[in-house]
Amino acid sequence: MNFADRLNKAIKDKKSVVCVGLDPRLNKIPSFIQEKALKKNKKKLKAAAKAILEFNKGIINAVYDLVPVVKPQVAFYEIFGEEGMWAYRETIEYAHKKGLIVIADIKRNDIGSTAEAYADSYLGTVNVFGEEQSVFDADAVTINPYLGWDGIKPFAEKCAEYNKGMFILVKTSNHSSGDLQDLQMADGRTIYEIMGMLVESWGASDIGESGYNPIGAVVGATYPHQAKKLRELMPNSIFLVPGYGAQGGGAQDVKPCFNKDGLGAIVNSSRGIIFAYEKSDKYTEDDYDKAAREAVVAMNKDLEGVR
Amino acid sequence: MNFADRLNKAIKDKKSVVCVGLDPRLNKIPSFIQEKALKKNKKKLKAAAKAILEFNKGIINAVYDLVPVVKPQVAFYEIFGEEGMWAYRETIEYAHKKGLIVIADIKRNDIGSTAEAYADSYLGTVNVFGEEQSVFDADAVTINPYLGWDGIKPFAEKCAEYNKGMFILVKTSNHSSGDLQDLQMADGRTIYEIMGMLVESWGASDIGESGYNPIGAVVGATYPHQAKKLRELMPNSIFLVPGYGAQGGGAQDVKPCFNKDGLGAIVNSSRGIIFAYEKSDKYTEDDYDKAAREAVVAMNKDLEGVR
Repeated sequence: MNFADRLNKAIKDKKSVVCVGLDPRLNKIPSFIQEKALKKNKKKLKAAAKAILEFNKGIINAVYDLVPVVKPQVAFYEIFGEEGMWAYRETIEYAHKKGLIVIADIKRNDIGSTAEAYADSYLGTVNVFGEEQSVFDADAVTINPYLGWDGIKPFAEKCAEYNKGMFILVKTSNHSSGDLQDLQMADGRTIYEIMGMLVESWGASDIGESGYNPIGAVVGATYPHQAKKLRELMPNSIFLVPGYGAQGGGAQDVKPCFNKDGLGAIVNSSRGIIFAYEKSDKYTEDDYDKAAREAVVAMNKDLEGVR
Repeated sequence: MNFADRLNKAIKDKKSVVCVGLDPRLNKIPSFIQEKALKKNKKKLKAAAKAILEFNKGIINAVYDLVPVVKPQVAFYEIFGEEGMWAYRETIEYAHKKGLIVIADIKRNDIGSTAEAYADSYLGTVNVFGEEQSVFDADAVTINPYLGWDGIKPFAEKCAEYNKGMFILVKTSNHSSGDLQDLQMADGRTIYEIMGMLVESWGASDIGESGYNPIGAVVGATYPHQAKKLRELMPNSIFLVPGYGAQGGGAQDVKPCFNKDGLGAIVNSSRGIIFAYEKSDKYTEDDYDKAAREAVVAMNKDLEGVR
């Protein structure tokens, strides 16, 4: 089963298109977790990594039956050096144990053997003194397309070999995404439209039974007009949609990202779910997991109406 | 002293514009280092990380008096998970001990607090339970501009605060770099030219005594015609030039990257230096460090003629 079919099956099984962004920030992790980690670990970077992992496990335990997919943003792990990367690997492993699909949000980009190294590490296996080992072992990655096909091909090959997926940045959710992405060609097309068409073509040879291919696109919820255009240009690509919630996008904004079959997009929320306790009248940080679950239930309901 | 001044001082001190790419590949590391690492470490990923670090130390010891700067490509460390990231951090630390400037070739790209996390980790300090710690502590990073200014600003701020630098992908050395970078606007300008002008403007407020700013550009040696155009559009930006040697670029190809003052570019070679033993008639893998030194001497001489 290709990645798109796997993801779509999970979406149907869970009746959810929500992707939970596992973007832990140490200072927002409940104090009982911080204190426990500090008590058990002398090295502060190690304690930070342990706290992150325990926090994530709490979130995963609270939401795994409600959502198909989680997306840990690697920057929030890498910030703590090798200890943080340990927590990243462990988080992916734990999410898998709970039956979740994992998108490693790494936005890596390089060429040739360098891109292959990333692809081996996050999607394939790594040859370590003659022994093939899985390292980060995610189900999909996010990739930046500035380098063109050379920067996509090594990942696309691993996707085909291991039934994994990738989401290529096309139209991002941030304010200045237009600096480059909205530039207009002589023929009237914008960079994000051209990238969208390239992404659709890169995945065209592997359309699964569910009608989608494993090479998807990152399309921000904050640009519904552009999303509508991209949906038309890319009928067989799955959109990973950031920008819902904290960044300002609502259910109506993500509506254009879906196809008529109710598929074609997963919508990410990070802060709005994992730190839902901050905005809750009902829960304190001690019940951050319950607050997260409630936020997911609400988001599932919110998105049900627009698919 | 801003980063550009520091780099230019080192270039003058060492009489070299060579950047040594520390891109170790386990299967090319001399067997005496591999065997030693395997003997001392049961866990293969740990052994791989130890082998990489020892290999790098040998290279650094052999070249540190001849070049101003080294550039470890993080993919070749990250491939070995958290153990590899340990070797990455240790490599940067060792290069610093030997007085080298270190460019962390990470090509990271993200927005808001996510980009800040990367910037803290690689250029600034990280708050770990109230204690400010340096984590990867490089002198400069490589950054991908697809997200526009939002993806640059957090790094630019750290550059200003800590006198660090960054090199933004503008025209990369690979075959398909034109897929996106050569697209042409209605007014005749290409994406790489527009990016070049943006990069020059982003650094314009911090031109140092040597006449350069800390926000540089990655410009491939394999595209001399485009490099010439960019040199004209970006008089105050330093170019980090990949593509020399193994990728096909020669001294004449990198000539357009320099200004009339003989500054304005550093030229990277990775495989051609660190695995020089493979193509040497004189040295075997046991003398990989001597072969690397000889390759650097030759490259310094080769580039002297075109500055």
